[in-house]
Amino acid sequence: MNYLEYLTVWKKLSSEHQKALTQAAAIRKFAKGTIMHNGGDECTGLLLVCSGQIRAYMISSDGREITLYRLFERDICLFSASCIMNSIQFDITIEAEKDTEVLVIPADVYKKVMEESAPLSNYTNEVMASRFTDVMWLIDQILWKSFDKRLAEFLLSESDIDGTDVLHITHEIIGNHLGNPREVVTRMLKYFQNEGLVKLSRGTIEICDKEGLKRIVEK
Amino acid sequence: MNYLEYLTVWKKLSSEHQKALTQAAAIRKFAKGTIMHNGGDECTGLLLVCSGQIRAYMISSDGREITLYRLFERDICLFSASCIMNSIQFDITIEAEKDTEVLVIPADVYKKVMEESAPLSNYTNEVMASRFTDVMWLIDQILWKSFDKRLAEFLLSESDIDGTDVLHITHEIIGNHLGNPREVVTRMLKYFQNEGLVKLSRGTIEICDKEGLKRIVEK
Repeated sequence: MNYLEYLTVWKKLSSEHQKALTQAAAIRKFAKGTIMHNGGDECTGLLLVCSGQIRAYMISSDGREITLYRLFERDICLFSASCIMNSIQFDITIEAEKDTEVLVIPADVYKKVMEESAPLSNYTNEVMASRFTDVMWLIDQILWKSFDKRLAEFLLSESDIDGTDVLHITHEIIGNHLGNPREVVTRMLKYFQNEGLVKLSRGTIEICDKEGLKRIVEK
Repeated sequence: MNYLEYLTVWKKLSSEHQKALTQAAAIRKFAKGTIMHNGGDECTGLLLVCSGQIRAYMISSDGREITLYRLFERDICLFSASCIMNSIQFDITIEAEKDTEVLVIPADVYKKVMEESAPLSNYTNEVMASRFTDVMWLIDQILWKSFDKRLAEFLLSESDIDGTDVLHITHEIIGNHLGNPREVVTRMLKYFQNEGLVKLSRGTIEICDKEGLKRIVEK
């Protein structure tokens, strides 16, 4: 199995570029809870997730954290290789949230191929734009965070009303209740699911952590 | 004057690509206060600032704003052409903060050249990484905003002490007072300057808006 084929751009690369990346890449395993990359001057390399789960977060000078985004199988982490671009002037920390296996692509090799290859460079642009979208969503949440509270409150209230932790309700209907588009509801519910608060399946929302939802309401 | 030469990558583009961009680009003027781009489905094109000043900001659903970054002469605005990448899934608003002249590069032409040209694509990566850095700094400020308060308080207190609005003090010394690196002080002072609160020149900091600084301290 060549995990590099997880890169959606793989088949568009020249065989020479494919070879350079293949020769340089190496599998590494990280046990759950391990810090895989820790900002600063490190340039760990790009991390392509083969299995497991990664959390990217910022840490304040007094040690507080905020999750920026999560990465799952087939996702790639660019910012663990911030030295591939001069303009990346911020530090993030990456931890293995589950036992995780990644393919590490050394930054210098990736950078060299990217400089020559329009497909790889355009792919990298898309990856960065996708993380940018995550982070813009986060700013929106942080600044104007009423919606997560309102959604948590709504779920708790529905659960009380129905006397069950398994809600049979569509995202669209919740949106209608709260005055938000369905997409906004779906995105926040997925965020809740990532946080272990709910479990989503077709047509149902199962509440897994009532106390966690209450903390959101009260924060 | 071909303003496209402002693109630091210009000389690395093929003459064919240079020609395509030159033929498509057009100058537009915007009076101070004009909304130049307003999120949503618009794909205004890339905006290369020839003169003037642009502000990029987010608006909450209830109309509150937050400045993401500012662009000056020779800067380029990507996110007014979010359709060049599928993964840009957020909306920002762009306004002319001063009378502004821009070169508009149509998104479809830029996208086509970028797909073929590794240099233009890599340049675009650097531009996006630079905006990403601005936004990450902003998150840091929003979440853990003690430093702007502390700096505003310090400037007001120094001004009181010296009985003048023109402070003769280096950024390094302020950093020493507040326990932060000089770079952090410089960055925040530049932010204050952009907000019209202070005016920086070699060796001095002039306080222009005392009430504004007080509002920061008290917020």
